[in-house]
Amino acid sequence: MTDGPKPFHIVFLLFDGITQLDFTGPAQVLCRIPGAVVHTAVKEIKPIQTDSGFAIVPSTDLTDCPQADLLCVPGGFGTRDVIQDEATLQFLRDQGAEARYVTSVCTGSLALGAAGLLEGRRATSHWAYTGLLEKFGATYEKARVVKDGNIITAGGVTSGIDFALTVVAEIAGQQWAESTQLSLEYDPHPPFGSGHPDVADPDLLAALLDRVYEKAARELADIIDRP
Amino acid sequence: MTDGPKPFHIVFLLFDGITQLDFTGPAQVLCRIPGAVVHTAVKEIKPIQTDSGFAIVPSTDLTDCPQADLLCVPGGFGTRDVIQDEATLQFLRDQGAEARYVTSVCTGSLALGAAGLLEGRRATSHWAYTGLLEKFGATYEKARVVKDGNIITAGGVTSGIDFALTVVAEIAGQQWAESTQLSLEYDPHPPFGSGHPDVADPDLLAALLDRVYEKAARELADIIDRP
Repeated sequence: MTDGPKPFHIVFLLFDGITQLDFTGPAQVLCRIPGAVVHTAVKEIKPIQTDSGFAIVPSTDLTDCPQADLLCVPGGFGTRDVIQDEATLQFLRDQGAEARYVTSVCTGSLALGAAGLLEGRRATSHWAYTGLLEKFGATYEKARVVKDGNIITAGGVTSGIDFALTVVAEIAGQQWAESTQLSLEYDPHPPFGSGHPDVADPDLLAALLDRVYEKAARELADIIDRP
Repeated sequence: MTDGPKPFHIVFLLFDGITQLDFTGPAQVLCRIPGAVVHTAVKEIKPIQTDSGFAIVPSTDLTDCPQADLLCVPGGFGTRDVIQDEATLQFLRDQGAEARYVTSVCTGSLALGAAGLLEGRRATSHWAYTGLLEKFGATYEKARVVKDGNIITAGGVTSGIDFALTVVAEIAGQQWAESTQLSLEYDPHPPFGSGHPDVADPDLLAALLDRVYEKAARELADIIDRP
């Protein structure tokens, strides 16, 4: 018999085309919760290809995945496949029904929405996709981290770190969260002030929308609207 | 024939016991440099175990690794093994001699130091280990990102994101760096203000030093001082 902390099961859904920092940022913070056990669940057991040129070995498939205390769905361009895959959406529904916390980072909230978990809830997403949340009956709230009951959604990519510290404070107390923040030297000093459309140069924003996000958001909207 | 950008080879050294965000944070930013090719180099070709409960598939061993344009050494508790492994240190020396940029995040700077690459240079590390830099002939500079010639070292863990944006600006221009920052929604709002010893609660800092870092720093010092 040991008298260690009770296991706290954290389940991340992984998939090809994940924006890996959506997952790895929160994982770095949440894995330090006392008793944390991190599970990485995929549809088919084989390494998943991230968007950053490397692959991650998953720990479980969807069928064998333990019930999450905290379920977290990251985002990325692979979201388009996730929201069209009924087995994965059923996995999110099943896990979400029993999890203490149902969470997402970036476009992961669209997967929660496609699974029907955001109906009537306040939520957020990556700034380029927040307009899609209402298609799932959710109300977009403009914040980096949005908590509505047991549903916590984060904005784009790096917001996952702020999200995770918020969650740690809730689960393990503010002191533990602050200690984790200190150990990760999370005292950010971005070299530029362009991290959100509200503060970025308008021409830069327009160019990025034109090059990447207008098309990407339209494609996702088409998939969601498909009968 | 394509007229795409010239390949820019980014080599990360990976190892068991890596603090994965030291690698994944910069990887998320640097992989968006035009022409970027990310290589993950390990001593033995098999998945490496991170500190966060998941494993990463490496792309190459040390022998077959292409020459880096940018070499980056992350940190973590596995640093203690890296600084004692002559083959790995020789790899860093060989790569470092030809790389356009030689960089590190967190305790990765101690590996650069052990390889002899910080002699006479200004550098930084995770806040708990900055006192060890002088053992390698380096001068500690108190900053989140320190640039001395082609050597760029970052502080603990999350500072790798600030570091990477700084590097992107240097390589691909400030506009590209700002665009990357916007796409990653890097507009940090830490829920607490405890990310550095200068701003954290002194009791919290003392407890963390006592629980983790005093012993860890002493052990590393002993390894470095061993004749």
